[in-house]
Amino acid sequence: MTVAILSIGTELTRGEILDTNAHWLAGELTAAGFTVTAADTVDDDLDRIVTCIQRLLRTHLLVIATGGLGPTTDDLTAVAAARALGVDLVRNESALLAIRQRVESRGAILNPGHEKQADLPANAEVLPNTAGTAPGFLLTATGASIAFLPGVPREMKTMFTEQVLPRIRSQSPSNTHQIRLRTYGYGESIVGQHLAGLETLYPGLTVGYRVHFPEVDVKVHVRATTQSVARDVACEAAVEVRRRLGDVVFGEGEEEFPEIVGRAISARGWQLAVAESCTGGLLSHLLTSFPASSYFVGGAVTYANDAKTRLLGVPDQMLRSHGAVSAEVAIAMAEGARRLHQVDVALAVTGIAGPSGGTATKPVGLVHWAIAHPGGTSAQHRIFPGGRDDVRYGAAYAALDLLRRTAVNLSVR
Amino acid sequence: MTVAILSIGTELTRGEILDTNAHWLAGELTAAGFTVTAADTVDDDLDRIVTCIQRLLRTHLLVIATGGLGPTTDDLTAVAAARALGVDLVRNESALLAIRQRVESRGAILNPGHEKQADLPANAEVLPNTAGTAPGFLLTATGASIAFLPGVPREMKTMFTEQVLPRIRSQSPSNTHQIRLRTYGYGESIVGQHLAGLETLYPGLTVGYRVHFPEVDVKVHVRATTQSVARDVACEAAVEVRRRLGDVVFGEGEEEFPEIVGRAISARGWQLAVAESCTGGLLSHLLTSFPASSYFVGGAVTYANDAKTRLLGVPDQMLRSHGAVSAEVAIAMAEGARRLHQVDVALAVTGIAGPSGGTATKPVGLVHWAIAHPGGTSAQHRIFPGGRDDVRYGAAYAALDLLRRTAVNLSVR
Repeated sequence: MTVAILSIGTELTRGEILDTNAHWLAGELTAAGFTVTAADTVDDDLDRIVTCIQRLLRTHLLVIATGGLGPTTDDLTAVAAARALGVDLVRNESALLAIRQRVESRGAILNPGHEKQADLPANAEVLPNTAGTAPGFLLTATGASIAFLPGVPREMKTMFTEQVLPRIRSQSPSNTHQIRLRTYGYGESIVGQHLAGLETLYPGLTVGYRVHFPEVDVKVHVRATTQSVARDVACEAAVEVRRRLGDVVFGEGEEEFPEIVGRAISARGWQLAVAESCTGGLLSHLLTSFPASSYFVGGAVTYANDAKTRLLGVPDQMLRSHGAVSAEVAIAMAEGARRLHQVDVALAVTGIAGPSGGTATKPVGLVHWAIAHPGGTSAQHRIFPGGRDDVRYGAAYAALDLLRRTAVNLSVR
Repeated sequence: MTVAILSIGTELTRGEILDTNAHWLAGELTAAGFTVTAADTVDDDLDRIVTCIQRLLRTHLLVIATGGLGPTTDDLTAVAAARALGVDLVRNESALLAIRQRVESRGAILNPGHEKQADLPANAEVLPNTAGTAPGFLLTATGASIAFLPGVPREMKTMFTEQVLPRIRSQSPSNTHQIRLRTYGYGESIVGQHLAGLETLYPGLTVGYRVHFPEVDVKVHVRATTQSVARDVACEAAVEVRRRLGDVVFGEGEEEFPEIVGRAISARGWQLAVAESCTGGLLSHLLTSFPASSYFVGGAVTYANDAKTRLLGVPDQMLRSHGAVSAEVAIAMAEGARRLHQVDVALAVTGIAGPSGGTATKPVGLVHWAIAHPGGTSAQHRIFPGGRDDVRYGAAYAALDLLRRTAVNLSVR
């Protein structure tokens, strides 16, 4: 069954935000066995939205639309949907009740903007929003269905997963299977080189790549005569991917890198502390972004040299002779953090995130990081390319990778 | 003049890559004064590409298409373009010469894949590619034009800037102006309420909203007879928006909230330290994400109770009697961080980010934050709705707002 995605919003057609919703939906629908053949975007213009809805319903059996369900006057999707299908817009009392409960649970008072979000096309099936205020809804006309979801990515994803997917899954041809392998350590082209020729080895296999810096996902997608055959072939191909890429594959599915690292630390029964300079709190933030982070005792963001000395006991003399961005200081920071927090393991990062501050011998992007643990202390360094964010994320991931490799006794790269 | 963007490629409809081309083109076209009303994506299917081209040429005066110009068999764009316009595909000798020169300059030999890239629709105007091999081309039919550019972002951007923009610029209406106001403090529906009726006060005004939690952008967009009139009306309307929203408007254009807060601290000549529990480094990360963050001395991520006592001197007895999530502890953390780092101002956050750890009296989402500064110490608290990320970002922004209001002597909300 061919599926279309419709993204609604002038912020998209004006290039103000990147449409990550369509990208995510395309990936999810493909993974569920659907074939997406169109992903269209329209600005906040009532007539054009109406025309798009009508056109996509003529050419596709299923349409997933996002955006324009908010409380403000530029949110026109419900009106457009009603007009496209030739039905009235009516206040949906059950949707209104859910909105009221959500608003009041936050200690706020229902206002006309909130109430507007309960005005839905007649005969719409309400799709509850457990992650936000605006409900979604599903409409069916002449054999084709269209689901309307909020544009806020978190709400859209929750609603698609909880409400839409269970309703449409039975319509999927169900003869595909996809495995998403998560990698960190190689760039996209190196990953591609390692996997060259793989598609010819397995019937129906398509290998897809998705970069979200500094990670690269490998999507092993197989279409076969039945889903069970597809699953078997995908599993075999995934084993071969893991064999070729080795421990650069850190996980599968939705597992995030910092989460995997944290789990490895917990599994060792270690308590962790970090000391950060150029990453400025990012390392702590990544580790504590996930629940079950009680292995993490604390962190010191020692941005100024003074702070490195005062909190971590980095000798003033060392800072003067080697500079704050040096292996010596990274090691002293890690050992200082380990002492300060009385923990098993400490990780430290110091570098030049840019855009300024580089010199001929210490260019922007140079980062040293070190780990102090029961087996000793070691340090690594690299010059990360790109802008300030690239250097900070690159450095944080490199440090986390050293931590992971130390925790699970992998060879340190 | 309304413009459409067409992105061609199954890697897009399968969600394997994010369509940054359409986003970039939308921004460039908007900046040049065009109105983009559609940005459609189609998979590598000849019939569907033909249909898309024909449809967009019927509804728009200008279409910019990207992708499908490569050397492999799944690159169908030139064939589809010829078929859509009912012309033959012919080998273009000047395009072939340019391709040959580029290939040979790299020390490679022209192959059939390269030659295929010189097969263009009859009457196509060749758009030279100074950044890659595949030429682009421009076609005109019944008053509408369509430019075909390569999908490789670097080549597409170079060709658009060098070849397309000079050809189309004279057709831009250049009669619009937009001002983007950045707000923090009200939800989208409250912002909408404050701005109700604004569009009726100013001719040609459209007010747009964009939420990127916890911020809400207000876009004041005016279309008028000339650009200078549009600018004047937009400026007047922006003044009115600022009047209605007050100091909830923190900036304009691309200025980010943590950057504005940092600038306010720098302007006071203050040195800042932070102490974080539930935000786990996020506050430090946000402040140091921007250059010129030297006002930031350091931070302590005191996740465990022990760390709060050891680093910040929070009395063990206080932690036992009030709990780690309390106004008392937030204040002690802020004062401890101020002492520890010997700075003018310190900010502290402690709370329950969830998903577990809440109690009847201290639910998930409860956060206390405090500021210690030369004028004294004060604390605030709130129960933030949503998931772990929402609580953490909500808390970090609330703390930053207290810092900003203290620095610029705004009333503390």
